[in-house]
Amino acid sequence: MKAEIISVGTEILLGDILDTNTQYIASRLPGLGIDLYYTSTVGDNLGRLTEAVRRAFERSDLTIMTGGLGPTEDDLTREAIAAALDEELYVDQAVADRLRAFFTARGLPFPERNVKQATLIASARALPNPRGTAPGWWVEREGRVIVAMPGPPAEMERMWNEEVAPELAKRSTGAVIVSRTLKTIGLGEGHVDEMVSPLLKSANPTIGVYAKMDGVHLRLTAKAATAAEARRLIEPLEAEVRRILGEAIWGADDDTLEGAVGRMLKERGLTLATMESCTGGLLADTITNVAGASDYFKGGYVAYLPETKASLGVGAELIEAHGVVSAEVAAGMARAARERADADIGIGVTGVAGPDPLEGKPPGTMHIAVDDGVSPQTISYTYYQGRLATKRRAVTTALALLRRLLLARG
Amino acid sequence: MKAEIISVGTEILLGDILDTNTQYIASRLPGLGIDLYYTSTVGDNLGRLTEAVRRAFERSDLTIMTGGLGPTEDDLTREAIAAALDEELYVDQAVADRLRAFFTARGLPFPERNVKQATLIASARALPNPRGTAPGWWVEREGRVIVAMPGPPAEMERMWNEEVAPELAKRSTGAVIVSRTLKTIGLGEGHVDEMVSPLLKSANPTIGVYAKMDGVHLRLTAKAATAAEARRLIEPLEAEVRRILGEAIWGADDDTLEGAVGRMLKERGLTLATMESCTGGLLADTITNVAGASDYFKGGYVAYLPETKASLGVGAELIEAHGVVSAEVAAGMARAARERADADIGIGVTGVAGPDPLEGKPPGTMHIAVDDGVSPQTISYTYYQGRLATKRRAVTTALALLRRLLLARG
Repeated sequence: MKAEIISVGTEILLGDILDTNTQYIASRLPGLGIDLYYTSTVGDNLGRLTEAVRRAFERSDLTIMTGGLGPTEDDLTREAIAAALDEELYVDQAVADRLRAFFTARGLPFPERNVKQATLIASARALPNPRGTAPGWWVEREGRVIVAMPGPPAEMERMWNEEVAPELAKRSTGAVIVSRTLKTIGLGEGHVDEMVSPLLKSANPTIGVYAKMDGVHLRLTAKAATAAEARRLIEPLEAEVRRILGEAIWGADDDTLEGAVGRMLKERGLTLATMESCTGGLLADTITNVAGASDYFKGGYVAYLPETKASLGVGAELIEAHGVVSAEVAAGMARAARERADADIGIGVTGVAGPDPLEGKPPGTMHIAVDDGVSPQTISYTYYQGRLATKRRAVTTALALLRRLLLARG
Repeated sequence: MKAEIISVGTEILLGDILDTNTQYIASRLPGLGIDLYYTSTVGDNLGRLTEAVRRAFERSDLTIMTGGLGPTEDDLTREAIAAALDEELYVDQAVADRLRAFFTARGLPFPERNVKQATLIASARALPNPRGTAPGWWVEREGRVIVAMPGPPAEMERMWNEEVAPELAKRSTGAVIVSRTLKTIGLGEGHVDEMVSPLLKSANPTIGVYAKMDGVHLRLTAKAATAAEARRLIEPLEAEVRRILGEAIWGADDDTLEGAVGRMLKERGLTLATMESCTGGLLADTITNVAGASDYFKGGYVAYLPETKASLGVGAELIEAHGVVSAEVAAGMARAARERADADIGIGVTGVAGPDPLEGKPPGTMHIAVDDGVSPQTISYTYYQGRLATKRRAVTTALALLRRLLLARG
């Protein structure tokens, strides 16, 4: 089934509110075996909205609309559907009665303007909305369907789950789509793409390569009659991808790098401590976003000033000799973190978060060290994407370096 | 100027990622006097993408695209624009050289695949992207403009602000909408709404009241021929709102609570240190997200385990007597942070980030203290919204408590 989503509302076009309904619905269509071809947002304008509905009805088997079902004059979704299908709006008595009951139940007078929420067209039936005043519309003609749901997420989500999705599940003859995401670190998008390029021709399952903040992701997507069958299609391709990319793959689907590294530490019974300057606590914060991090994370130090570093056991002479922003000081911080917190492994991060240079070194200069007392490792690079992204990238790199150390230890 | 936005990516249609670029751009168009008529998302399909670009070029003066500029086979934005305008793609040598230099600067080999990122058409010029490998496109033909920017927000936002917006500002002629946001803390949404209710009738400028994670925001929006004129309309209303809400207002527009508190510390020549357990470094991270935080932030300690707290000077007997999750230990941590880091003010945060209880205390239990050696203050509450939201709320509360202390000191 070919579908598209239209969200309605000038406030979305003004950027005043972020439309999350579209993603909510989009993420649920593959599991129903429905293919989403387009999404769009149109403002509260009858002409443009009508045109959008008409085009959607022509090119899509299923059109899902959210918003524009309120009682005010600029709520125009019903009017637009009626105009696009060239049908007359009429007040449905049963719907009107339910609407009046909704107000009565709350001891409120019934505003006459809300009568428009009780209108229907010949091809439409009303979808109940116990959470609000706006009933939805299920429109069916010439074997094509238009669904209109209210904009408030709480109302839309209930209507989707209880009224719309079950109905669509019955009709969708389409195959189910299942996705599996493999997450890599240490390879660029272009390189991963090159390495798996022979597999990119695969039609079912397909492979997509995406650069993310925590590395390059590969998305394997299979289409089949059932979810189980789709998963069976994915398995051999996943095995092949894993063979090609090997240890570059650190996790799958909802795994996070901090979670993956945390599992490795737990399995090996190792503890961790951090000392960071330019990342300012983001490394410790990220590590402790994992529930149960207290099993392996002993603590962290945010040594934001040279004197603080010195007071935490990073040799002042080291700072003297190489400057605060140096691989040597990063190594010293990793060692000091390990010793002070009495941990098995320490991580040290020093660099220039920006926007201004430091010690004549440009923003984005970064030195990261891990120290397990046996084979300390350091990595240095310069990459500036703004202060926050630079901190985030340093944290990802630090976790990747820790992972490499743990893999080397076996 | 009639504009529309097209975001490109199958992962958006699958609901795997939430498109925030569209809102970012949409929210900035009113200030440029540009009217946004449509936004849409199209997957990585050359036929559908080409059709979308062709329709946009026909009906809109300005088409803004994000995504699909990567090096992989399913990055098709350039190909779609070329096809829609019926122009030939060619490799631009200057762009190719910049691209190779980008890789060389990072000590990376240049994957031949990335050459496609150096392609142009006759009507296009490249927009530099120092934050990534994908240059943008500025396409101009028959007095109409198509702008293509990369999908990663850090890259898109820089390109928008430095390359695209200034160029559009020169060309736009429409009436300008200017918004001013005033940010409060310590008052509920209903309370703020009540206090300013006489002003809510105002038609131009309008006032909107929104509850946000960092307190309640008031949005003042005016429409006029020029930005200056719109700002003049806002000024008296802003003055009135400030008179009514007074010290509850901590900032405006892009101000952050950490930035506002940082300014207060700098003005007063005071230094700060933190000791946090359940927030795991998020407090220090948030404070150091402010450029120049090194002027007042001396450092922080992430005391994730009781023994770490003790080793950092939080009396073991204190922990014995009251438990780690207690107002007394929070106060002890604030004092210890101040003394150890030799700072004027210390902040201590202890609590239960969840999902599991600790010491029999439920997730969301939080104790926060600030200590300036004169009039220490503590705040305690229980509010659980999941681990990450709980950490975030504790940080906001800690910054608000610090602000209250600084205001009291005068």
